Amino acid sequence: MPELRQNYFTKEWVIMATERAKRPEELATRRVVKELPSFVETCPFCLGNESKTPPEVMRISSQDDAAWQVRVVANKFAALSPDAQPTRRIHRSRRSMGGFGVHDVIIDTPNHAHFMALMSDAHVANVLRAYKARFDTLSLDPRIAHITIFKNHGLDAGASLEHPHSQLIATPVISSQVRGRFHQALAHYDEYGECMFCQMIEEEIAEKTRVVILTDRFVALQPYASPTPFTTHILPRRHIASFGDISATEITDLACVLRSMLAKLNSGLGNPDFNYTIRSAPAEYAGVKHFHWYVSILPRLTRVAGFELGSGMFINTVLPESAAEFLRNVQIDLALGAAGN
Amino acid sequence: MPELRQNYFTKEWVIMATERAKRPEELATRRVVKELPSFVETCPFCLGNESKTPPEVMRISSQDDAAWQVRVVANKFAALSPDAQPTRRIHRSRRSMGGFGVHDVIIDTPNHAHFMALMSDAHVANVLRAYKARFDTLSLDPRIAHITIFKNHGLDAGASLEHPHSQLIATPVISSQVRGRFHQALAHYDEYGECMFCQMIEEEIAEKTRVVILTDRFVALQPYASPTPFTTHILPRRHIASFGDISATEITDLACVLRSMLAKLNSGLGNPDFNYTIRSAPAEYAGVKHFHWYVSILPRLTRVAGFELGSGMFINTVLPESAAEFLRNVQIDLALGAAGN
Repeated sequence: MPELRQNYFTKEWVIMATERAKRPEELATRRVVKELPSFVETCPFCLGNESKTPPEVMRISSQDDAAWQVRVVANKFAALSPDAQPTRRIHRSRRSMGGFGVHDVIIDTPNHAHFMALMSDAHVANVLRAYKARFDTLSLDPRIAHITIFKNHGLDAGASLEHPHSQLIATPVISSQVRGRFHQALAHYDEYGECMFCQMIEEEIAEKTRVVILTDRFVALQPYASPTPFTTHILPRRHIASFGDISATEITDLACVLRSMLAKLNSGLGNPDFNYTIRSAPAEYAGVKHFHWYVSILPRLTRVAGFELGSGMFINTVLPESAAEFLRNVQIDLALGAAGN
Repeated sequence: MPELRQNYFTKEWVIMATERAKRPEELATRRVVKELPSFVETCPFCLGNESKTPPEVMRISSQDDAAWQVRVVANKFAALSPDAQPTRRIHRSRRSMGGFGVHDVIIDTPNHAHFMALMSDAHVANVLRAYKARFDTLSLDPRIAHITIFKNHGLDAGASLEHPHSQLIATPVISSQVRGRFHQALAHYDEYGECMFCQMIEEEIAEKTRVVILTDRFVALQPYASPTPFTTHILPRRHIASFGDISATEITDLACVLRSMLAKLNSGLGNPDFNYTIRSAPAEYAGVKHFHWYVSILPRLTRVAGFELGSGMFINTVLPESAAEFLRNVQIDLALGAAGN
């Protein structure tokens, strides 16, 4: 029999369609993984082509290497502009605002072929440090209300450039979606006096069935009301509302967990297209007791159709318990963590 | 300069990315439209293959024709089951419910090639009558809280079968998304004593720039804070909260507007994949003054990526004013409305 599960954090329902259930491996892409070159003459993100990008915002280099490891540049096709004025206009039913904002591209690596699942943990840590540096700097601007850091990997995930990169968009508003999650978490805190994320993390670690990776500082799990196959959350085990408050030790730990999760998805499911996003409290709420930041990874293995769009409810054909078991059993090259790049 | 626009009904923001703006015609698919056969031996929805579907729930036949025009059958791969019990279970952070529900397939036509943009208005009216008959019947079941009627057209829109069909999923819960929209509309009614949809319709008809088709009973328009290119809403001009309360005259009028809109999208944009969904008040709220049902058509011309998933905000590269102008100018074969099958 099918089952409905309710997302604890958004109150949205998900249909676990056990009648159409698939074994996790059935969802693996059957694509032939294209061997990418490490350098492409026309790619603006490749080593040596630095002049082809908009001005550099920052870079991170490794100690023993003159070249850069991570570069942050302005997005050439920015969705928002730092030169616009965030002025609100209200005219009857129409509400608008000048398109002020910042749109960065984080070039993860100088190597065209070197996507995150194949990087060393040390290199992933530098990507995360670039995220944090930009998050911290932009959080100081009072015109910025919210910062979304995300990665699109593959065409189906909306990536228009092949070279491994991430993006950051800082907006002058907090989205209604983020507000809604925030309010739910606050209502829970007011009722029970606890962070609902901390409570869930404790339960899931005790339960074990949906946990994929557990370290001293992070847990990677398949959420109980997972909306799509292999949706993965990586949460810090201590209570922190804002990504900006991640510690240096936590960055090192997260790099290992994130790289390992992406390597498991890559090996187990045939390099699927995916998005990840860092869900963080807005800077003005960095200290709150009720919210908890995390990384959400969404492999794009199925299509969103009319039911999902019309109702907001998703139909998931892979139980998160099965997905977690499958991913726990995917062997990855742990040595890569130390030796890669 | 880019602009942010706020959806009046959900309060969600949309980025109108004028810097990356595209002319509407640039988004047309360049696909060669495959000529489909009118009959496919292996297709369970084709005329003569009726025994290949699960049991028939209802059918509509034309007066001058012995064969059926529209059939409703149970979905062979139903997401929910009428045999499950909608019992709630709560265990700490985990909330679930038996997967009770009804999942119908509406076979729009016996002809494999005859998709809705090419139908006669009279045939589309029969499809709408099938929707309403099922909506009315299922609304009588107290275990059913909400009904979503939708169509997936094309692979990118999640259609797994080529033969033109629609679907209906009746759930024992009202989704959090629908609840949220309902609450916003109620808050507006409490503050201003008016249906915010009625108000918007009046404004848009006066403004004209985003209106594509206007009849005595319906308006088809591009919403002011359109999240994706060519998102189209078809709204009844009189206040009705529930699709179940559509009148016989309104069905005839809507059939013409819906068929004309789909024909314009088909001709103007090269038969794009699309979803449509009927957004209606749940049956228990059929009489409310604050909500207003409508049809939402979403052409799938762009991909949802990490920013949209992480923030809930969309980036739209085609202004709704440009999309409306483009669609107003697409000439369609009006004669088809009368002469086509």
